[in-house]
Amino acid sequence: MLLVLLNVVAVVVESEHQLYEAYQLYFDGFEIFSVAVFTLEYGLRLWVCVESSDKALQHSLRGRWRYVYSPMALIDLLAILPFYLSFFFGVSDWRVLRSLRLLRLLKLTRYSRSLALLLTVIRQEADTLISALLILCTLIMLAATGMYWLEGHVQPEAFGSIPRALWWSTVSVATVGYGDVTPITQAGKLFSGIIIILGIAIAALPAAILASGIINELKRRRESFRLEMVRAMENGFLDFGGLRYLEKVRIHIGISRAEARLVFEEVKQENRLQTQTRCPHCAHSLMIKHPPGHVHVHSVKLRD
Amino acid sequence: MLLVLLNVVAVVVESEHQLYEAYQLYFDGFEIFSVAVFTLEYGLRLWVCVESSDKALQHSLRGRWRYVYSPMALIDLLAILPFYLSFFFGVSDWRVLRSLRLLRLLKLTRYSRSLALLLTVIRQEADTLISALLILCTLIMLAATGMYWLEGHVQPEAFGSIPRALWWSTVSVATVGYGDVTPITQAGKLFSGIIIILGIAIAALPAAILASGIINELKRRRESFRLEMVRAMENGFLDFGGLRYLEKVRIHIGISRAEARLVFEEVKQENRLQTQTRCPHCAHSLMIKHPPGHVHVHSVKLRD
Amino acid sequence: MLLVLLNVVAVVVESEHQLYEAYQLYFDGFEIFSVAVFTLEYGLRLWVCVESSDKALQHSLRGRWRYVYSPMALIDLLAILPFYLSFFFGVSDWRVLRSLRLLRLLKLTRYSRSLALLLTVIRQEADTLISALLILCTLIMLAATGMYWLEGHVQPEAFGSIPRALWWSTVSVATVGYGDVTPITQAGKLFSGIIIILGIAIAALPAAILASGIINELKRRRESFRLEMVRAMENGFLDFGGLRYLEKVRIHIGISRAEARLVFEEVKQENRLQTQTRCPHCAHSLMIKHPPGHVHVHSVKLRD
Amino acid sequence: MLLVLLNVVAVVVESEHQLYEAYQLYFDGFEIFSVAVFTLEYGLRLWVCVESSDKALQHSLRGRWRYVYSPMALIDLLAILPFYLSFFFGVSDWRVLRSLRLLRLLKLTRYSRSLALLLTVIRQEADTLISALLILCTLIMLAATGMYWLEGHVQPEAFGSIPRALWWSTVSVATVGYGDVTPITQAGKLFSGIIIILGIAIAALPAAILASGIINELKRRRESFRLEMVRAMENGFLDFGGLRYLEKVRIHIGISRAEARLVFEEVKQENRLQTQTRCPHCAHSLMIKHPPGHVHVHSVKLRD
Repeated sequence: MLLVLLNVVAVVVESEHQLYEAYQLYFDGFEIFSVAVFTLEYGLRLWVCVESSDKALQHSLRGRWRYVYSPMALIDLLAILPFYLSFFFGVSDWRVLRSLRLLRLLKLTRYSRSLALLLTVIRQEADTLISALLILCTLIMLAATGMYWLEGHVQPEAFGSIPRALWWSTVSVATVGYGDVTPITQAGKLFSGIIIILGIAIAALPAAILASGIINELKRRRESFRLEMVRAMENGFLDFGGLRYLEKVRIHIGISRAEARLVFEEVKQENRLQTQTRCPHCAHSLMIKHPPGHVHVHSVKLRD
Repeated sequence: MLLVLLNVVAVVVESEHQLYEAYQLYFDGFEIFSVAVFTLEYGLRLWVCVESSDKALQHSLRGRWRYVYSPMALIDLLAILPFYLSFFFGVSDWRVLRSLRLLRLLKLTRYSRSLALLLTVIRQEADTLISALLILCTLIMLAATGMYWLEGHVQPEAFGSIPRALWWSTVSVATVGYGDVTPITQAGKLFSGIIIILGIAIAALPAAILASGIINELKRRRESFRLEMVRAMENGFLDFGGLRYLEKVRIHIGISRAEARLVFEEVKQENRLQTQTRCPHCAHSLMIKHPPGHVHVHSVKLRD
Repeated sequence: MLLVLLNVVAVVVESEHQLYEAYQLYFDGFEIFSVAVFTLEYGLRLWVCVESSDKALQHSLRGRWRYVYSPMALIDLLAILPFYLSFFFGVSDWRVLRSLRLLRLLKLTRYSRSLALLLTVIRQEADTLISALLILCTLIMLAATGMYWLEGHVQPEAFGSIPRALWWSTVSVATVGYGDVTPITQAGKLFSGIIIILGIAIAALPAAILASGIINELKRRRESFRLEMVRAMENGFLDFGGLRYLEKVRIHIGISRAEARLVFEEVKQENRLQTQTRCPHCAHSLMIKHPPGHVHVHSVKLRD
Repeated sequence: MLLVLLNVVAVVVESEHQLYEAYQLYFDGFEIFSVAVFTLEYGLRLWVCVESSDKALQHSLRGRWRYVYSPMALIDLLAILPFYLSFFFGVSDWRVLRSLRLLRLLKLTRYSRSLALLLTVIRQEADTLISALLILCTLIMLAATGMYWLEGHVQPEAFGSIPRALWWSTVSVATVGYGDVTPITQAGKLFSGIIIILGIAIAALPAAILASGIINELKRRRESFRLEMVRAMENGFLDFGGLRYLEKVRIHIGISRAEARLVFEEVKQENRLQTQTRCPHCAHSLMIKHPPGHVHVHSVKLRD
């Protein structure tokens, strides 16, 4: 939705005071216009939600109430609420509320599959990510303590206490390195050299976790899709209804068309290997091991 | 192609004015020479393209026209067009056009398999990468807004408005950290410390996406090759024609010889397990479960 | 445990001298309180450990002694020892010992599964990580040597000897880049440009190693769980006892519920393909290829 | 080898002139001692190499000659050659040759499996890594060209020509960010902001390539080991000789004991599923589908 991006631009530009004062009318007009559109959208979604295919929402009143609490609806509400709050309760703390409109960016999630994938992965790996950041924080803490011992008396301004040294150690371990604070003694340089090298290894953890998370999530989806496909092809072939069902599943699970085709090829080949093992006499599949009686029907023929 | 690299060197060196003025003759001569070579190459390719194995290009006129619009041909054209434009329409905006010759670097794609692999992966994951950059931009935006609230009045030069604060937040979240703008208040340092640590996690997304993309792409290629190989070895052995076909497929799909050999070993072993299960009497493969009649042919022998 | 985090906060805050002097009483009180709690916890664990399901610890005395040497117990001991040491031997070197309380952070390992996963991976990959850091150190060393040759006489302060140049090269290769020391000659800039670009590739090694490590560890766990599940479902179905056993295994191995469900689906489908191949006459599974005699039992019936 | 590390320390320390002049005798003595040890090692290896299990080296003279050209032997030679060269041809360019002793670090490769793994992966992925660095260089070039257009006239010192702007763009795209050169115009900041964000994505390529490389290499090794194991267990069980052979293969391929055990478990379970399908009457494995004649031997018994 273009409107969301325009809103973000408006928030950013209007924080430049001269510009805001010069074109206040336009900014305020645009704000009222976009809030009107978003309110309309919110209302319509709330109206339509009972028609959804999701059973839980089909009750006319309770369904709507449940919808209001769904994450998507909350984001939509958050995008318009600040305006109404500041409108009804006066314009106090106007600046803070205006900036909250940045949250409208989150509305974009609805329109992008890959963004949804990334957010899913981040949510799934949140636990592991927090652990990685905890390890990182331990390293930062140790670095700050070390520098406080080593350079606390040389540069009291920068390393005079652990909280002050934390600024330097955070900036260093994160490989940002502003350079406003740097060690000056030999011991300090040696120590921070070691910390920096360790920092590379530890700061690599989030990348590793996210890579593992994305790979596993994609694999899980492919596997689910494969299970669905095997189920759909159980009777040996795939009719039109099955194909349409699989296409719906594919979109729901969210894997690419190329991926799906490869899974299809694999399942087909596996099936072919099995359907090759049909009894060349009675054409019954040998997978369902033809009932032993058949053996003799044929053997009788041969024996005669 | 060495010439492409020499061209890039020429563009870079000639932007140093003294050098350009001193050796203008050589630079211009080299430019004319390389444009001549590239034009010749373009012409030859256009001439030869109808001989290609690709059906879509075999018609003498429409085929050529279609070739002109292929991405490779467009890059080739872009590499020589600036010169002719500036030649026919005068040398206005000479500097810009000269620099466009840097695009000739893209011609190297034709000569490297691994470069092609990387570009394929980047193109495939473009969607996900853009989503990651969008998440990154949201963090940058939030960081800028936060610093604008916290230090807007202390350092109006650097954080006086969101657009100005964006410079600092971009540089910080990307872990570049020039150090020309740094927070000075306690609150600002605390806030930017949190942002920096979050930044490590978010800035790791592209690495994760690309790693997942490369791994999946290589896996997909190996899988396609495996499918081809299983198909080629269906009748239980691999003749010379099949081997040559597989070699062509291997190069087309673009997997290494070592990889291919491993796939071959696996398929062979699978096949061996199956071919072991041949009837030791009649040599019919048991995979095609020997027709029941055979049982009695042998059993008769034994019974006698 | 909240108390651990509060302790870390206390260590950090109290290194700010003014604050410490102002509220010394509270800090000391909090220290005594938390040491008391941790001592109590340590004592209780030591008391209870003989009840553990682990055989090696069940002997009343030797078991306790063995527990004292387990890594978890050592960390617990380390968290309280500094206080008692400084209490009994006087407050000499007080500051160092106080900071050692930061090690209490390590106690958090007990409470988080994902933290344990990360530490497992780091321990497993320690060898490879050290190798990567060795390669990194070689690059840093070469960079320092190169700059010592190139700029040693221009900036004797920064590059006058290899140890001094090491500071710059460490900061640069790690992409921290404080900017307190930068090359100024053309040759130095060219050389460090090459080193920086190489540095990106080499500094990426830890991320790659850790990503590979996490992915492999998770795969290994999933595979172990799958083996357990196949074993539990050997007789074709999964009773309540088997389910409870699998749940215990799942928690012990440490894979998520969603992961476990997918493995279950896969194993079930494999099994279903096999259980389909039951003899439709005598209901004996054909996997255990019905004993040939059966054939005739049926065939007799048919022949009649 | 400790001696190698000591040598590196010596090179580093001795570049500090005062120290070198003070303890010249010790440094020179240590150098002569370590060259003596390395020469002895080289001689012994050259003597013993014909006893190697590798056929290609078993000829007494040609084998030795071939060994001299192997990469390992070349590194060993490179570690001692500088000393002899400077000894026989005088001490001109002494400093450069001394620093070459840093290459002795490469000798450590012989002693570490994981270092060898990393170097294997880097060599295998060299092609792809170079492609990634080429893409990176294109981005750096474009960034330099852009800044040359945008700020060439504002900061002629830093961005006056493309070669000069290259320094800034290299430092920025690599996320080092010294801060000695920064854009000052609005347009320059906007442009470099975009370049920095693109840089994050592109600079992530090497990490992605190496991660993919390590994962694939480990997978390939596991697969090779699995193939060996399946081959060794073909007759249904694993005798002591087979176990010893597998252990040798495991060490040669270079996978961990835990990994090997898991592969063993999997192969065993697969085998068990197959060995379950033994004929319960004659105990012949049904994998080698018992010759049909057997059927009747039993059936006769039953029929009686």
